[in-house]
Parts: sequence; structure tokens; C-alpha cells
Amino acid sequence: MILERALITVKPGQAEAFKAAFVKARPHIEGSKGCRKVEMRPGIENPDDFLLLVWWDTLEDHTVGFRESAAFAEWRAILGPLFAAPPAVVHHEEPL
Amino acid sequence: MILERALITVKPGQAEAFKAAFVKARPHIEGSKGCRKVEMRPGIENPDDFLLLVWWDTLEDHTVGFRESAAFAEWRAILGPLFAAPPAVVHHEEPL
Repeated sequence: MILERALITVKPGQAEAFKAAFVKARPHIEGSKGCRKVEMRPGIENPDDFLLLVWWDTLEDHTVGFRESAAFAEWRAILGPLFAAPPAVVHHEEPL
Repeated sequence: MILERALITVKPGQAEAFKAAFVKARPHIEGSKGCRKVEMRPGIENPDDFLLLVWWDTLEDHTVGFRESAAFAEWRAILGPLFAAPPAVVHHEEPL
């Protein structure tokens, strides 16, 4: 499995709204082929920062399978309006 | 448990040396009070970037217990010379 890591900063004061939106958005990513686990964690130092971790079977399950799906459009439509800026998204190999 | 997230970029060409150094450094953090799990994951887009995830019982187990220990000095002495810049370290709450 590879790990997607997205750093999300929400608009000031929107952290609680974002948490509620994530409940609605979550099934759209969890149902995607190759998606094994999803975690969204609020920042301790800055509560407007969130760390999204998604474990995928393959890189392409995320970058092609999910990103080009209708489910991604739904996911982004729910969460996107609360983003302060486009999230920084990268991927990591298996742990050493 | 809380999650420490450190973004590490190593000096150009030092990724393999960093992986070898991590094998030596790892016991110094894994043996620290409250340390439940450690993962070091190479970046896919940039192999000189590493994501360090450490699950701690409490924030203070990291920021006080480990950071002020002799074990941290050892850990940093092994890995620090390979860092391109000081790592960006923050903490995250339990997952939503």
C-alpha cells in the first residue's frame, strides 16, 4: 500500500463546519476501488489545519481511479468550499 | 494517542544514507516512554522527502519526555547531519 498525505487548511473559523462536511464526504472516498483506510486529523498547534491520510493499494487507485471519478467530484464539492487554499497532496512509499 | 508528523528533506543524493542512518536511530525513539509506533516513509514524487509519523500516548511524551532526553540527542546526532533543513514538525489529534 502507498500513503496519500494531504495538508488541508480551512478558512478561518470553519473547522467545525469542515468536520461536519467530512462526515458527508467520507463515503465518497471510502467506497473507491483500492481505498483501504481514511483518517482526517485536526492539527493541535493550529485547529484550522487538517492532515488527511489515505492508504491506497496503488498510486493509480488514487491519481486515476479516484481523481477521475464522479465520487471525487462529490467529495470535492462538499469539502472544497471550506479550503483556504488548494491542499498540498503527495504520496509516500511503504514504511522503511 | 496523538500523531507527530515531521516532514524531512535530506540533502541531495543522501536518501540511501538517510535510510541506513534511520535503522541506527530508530531504537532511540522507539524506546522512549509513550512511543507506540514509528513510521518513516520515502516520498514517491520526491525521493529526498520523507514523512515521519510517530504515535505518542500524549503530546508531552514527545515534546518534553523525548525532546529533553539523551535519546533525542542520539537520534538527532545520527539523522541531523543528513537534513537539508530543520524538519517541519507538528502534531495532530485523534482521527475524526
